[in-house]
Amino acid sequence: MTDTRRDETANWFAQLRDRICTAFEKLEDEHQGAHGDRPAGRFERKSWERPAEPGQERGGGGGTMAMMHGRVFEKVGVNISAVHGVFNEEFRKQIPGAAADGRFWAGGISLVAHMHSPLVPAVHMNTRYIVTTQAWFGGGTDLTPMIPNPEDAQAFHDALRRTCDLHDRAYYPRFKQWCDEYFFIKHRGEPRGAGGIFFDNLNTGDWPRDFAFVRDVGTTFLDTYPLIVRRHMNETWTEEQRRDQLVRRGRYVEFNLLYDRGTAFGLKTSGNVDAILMSLPPVVMWP
Amino acid sequence: MTDTRRDETANWFAQLRDRICTAFEKLEDEHQGAHGDRPAGRFERKSWERPAEPGQERGGGGGTMAMMHGRVFEKVGVNISAVHGVFNEEFRKQIPGAAADGRFWAGGISLVAHMHSPLVPAVHMNTRYIVTTQAWFGGGTDLTPMIPNPEDAQAFHDALRRTCDLHDRAYYPRFKQWCDEYFFIKHRGEPRGAGGIFFDNLNTGDWPRDFAFVRDVGTTFLDTYPLIVRRHMNETWTEEQRRDQLVRRGRYVEFNLLYDRGTAFGLKTSGNVDAILMSLPPVVMWP
Repeated sequence: MTDTRRDETANWFAQLRDRICTAFEKLEDEHQGAHGDRPAGRFERKSWERPAEPGQERGGGGGTMAMMHGRVFEKVGVNISAVHGVFNEEFRKQIPGAAADGRFWAGGISLVAHMHSPLVPAVHMNTRYIVTTQAWFGGGTDLTPMIPNPEDAQAFHDALRRTCDLHDRAYYPRFKQWCDEYFFIKHRGEPRGAGGIFFDNLNTGDWPRDFAFVRDVGTTFLDTYPLIVRRHMNETWTEEQRRDQLVRRGRYVEFNLLYDRGTAFGLKTSGNVDAILMSLPPVVMWP
Repeated sequence: MTDTRRDETANWFAQLRDRICTAFEKLEDEHQGAHGDRPAGRFERKSWERPAEPGQERGGGGGTMAMMHGRVFEKVGVNISAVHGVFNEEFRKQIPGAAADGRFWAGGISLVAHMHSPLVPAVHMNTRYIVTTQAWFGGGTDLTPMIPNPEDAQAFHDALRRTCDLHDRAYYPRFKQWCDEYFFIKHRGEPRGAGGIFFDNLNTGDWPRDFAFVRDVGTTFLDTYPLIVRRHMNETWTEEQRRDQLVRRGRYVEFNLLYDRGTAFGLKTSGNVDAILMSLPPVVMWP
């Protein structure tokens, strides 16, 4: 039973990855704005295998990074992974269901897009399924505008609220607030972006229902973000706006390296450094 | 007695700052290479005051940032500070002599230089004097070449060895190794740069001697780094070398935000965010 669920989720993450890559390449094809003289971008895939933790014989699995450097997408990574192993002592205490038995399986999809245009928001989406002696889903998606645009943020949140409400009326307010709290740059006292939803340890006891919600988060992202990109990708921007974007990206780096649990978790569990740090923007300024 | 020492060290850090700023502005004046059409850079100073910790009435002090964006120095910050307050519970356990009485005084100078030319190494120098119920010096200086240059690294290390040896033959090997261990980017398994020296909790029981060593570290930096800059600043570089520099700077950011204790310490003790993060390079790439 459990193995079927691992296969089902891993298959879904790969399928979603394929659909997202196709949709993003379509945006590259349609583009007519700046850098239009460059060829439309295409994803390149690279697989990696995970070594066992030091001192552990068991371990393994791996993932596939799909990266594109295009004319709309300055740098976008869509990574899937399915890894298994044994948590070390430090992590056992922190991870639900791992205290007595440190074995784990973790599968997921993780996406970060940094855009050429400062008028197109950056975006992050991640969903995952974790199995220890317990099992749960986690994930979310959030928008990081470089120049505030209330309409984009509204459209993004509206779509997420509609999806959440189909599953549980309590989800959107709870997961929106969780997102606001999580993606907060403490030392600057400012949010990373315009928010979205964030959830973890999701296990209602009804696995098919939870998995359906997680799939819907993925498809909602797929249906919504390209609309926002399409709305702005052909607009012209100024050098000053581009500069503001590069500075704003610095805040993104600060958050990811100082506070993001996924980044710390990945680096501490001998994750694939390139896959973990693909979230970092292609060009950044701290003037 | 202790107050005199605080004044003496704070005065020294300010004096050293002045001499470094003068030396760096001189390099800006002498420069004849790339960006030579721009005006020679000049430091701009900005003072800040430190608020008390939340829940504490005592606290205070502050500092002065000196920043220059020149034609040799792309971004250089030379900060001095002298702050005092009371450590919170978390820090009391970690800081020598603060467990029972959390009051502290901390003064220091901190410098990071990022250069336009990829042929000129970036550099970091910091010395500090900390007083709790104990008192000690800490600091060091290390070189971060963007393109390996064994001669520069050798000259830098030779100067530090000579200075250390004048004080204690055990210092250089110990402080060099400490530096190598400290400035190591664990997740990439690589050093941040070409090393230098790093020391902390320095209290031999002979305060004048320790203070003399700390002053000599500052003047050795002042005598050595400008020579390395002068050797390369008028050399021409390629776009490819510049790109390598921007990527190498990404590693610098990763180290400072993921591992540097001073950064974490500053951000967690409500330090001045601009002063703490002045170490981050002006332009960075994660391609």
